[in-house]
Amino acid sequence: MNALPPLSYDANGLIPAIVQDDATGGVLMLGYMDEEAVRRTLEKGLVTFWSRSRQEYWTKGETSGNVLRLKGIRKDCDADALLVRADPAGPTCHTGERSCFYRDLGVVE
Amino acid sequence: MNALPPLSYDANGLIPAIVQDDATGGVLMLGYMDEEAVRRTLEKGLVTFWSRSRQEYWTKGETSGNVLRLKGIRKDCDADALLVRADPAGPTCHTGERSCFYRDLGVVE
Repeated sequence: MNALPPLSYDANGLIPAIVQDDATGGVLMLGYMDEEAVRRTLEKGLVTFWSRSRQEYWTKGETSGNVLRLKGIRKDCDADALLVRADPAGPTCHTGERSCFYRDLGVVE
Repeated sequence: MNALPPLSYDANGLIPAIVQDDATGGVLMLGYMDEEAVRRTLEKGLVTFWSRSRQEYWTKGETSGNVLRLKGIRKDCDADALLVRADPAGPTCHTGERSCFYRDLGVVE
């Protein structure tokens, strides 16, 4: 594959990646990628993160089957955040919710 | 106002905040908030970040007029990311684009 374009990774070598449902526009989750996770995501066509808690690469859905099939990636104006558009095979959240953002903050609305 | 619910801030006391256009579902930008920025956002009804580059509070649009009027805030399943729904008064990106995510990564699509 072609070389990856330069991105601004943080002090830990990570860049936040927002995952958006390509069909509905719903925001599904926020994860973190390093350069290798970006590369794996592009090569496999499945959204792959660096898990900060487990310190390992994590292809979303590799155990549950609820993969996120890659539709496209955008970078922001200063290249320090990614917007990943994906087609989710099932619920994205480990709770069974469609999106990890299923709770209101509690003080608004 | 009521007390803020507990959130998981990072080692710098920040939490990433995805801003989504409440009307269109488009993802506009990613910024960072500390607890005070969350409080100011809720009190003013205008999305306010902690600017890591300028090291100061930054109410989006306070100089350009392109404010983000708050519609609601959700937290994710482990409370370490926010999804802020807003009504943008104009282009969100400093480039004049509607969204900061206006460029494809370059190696996909």
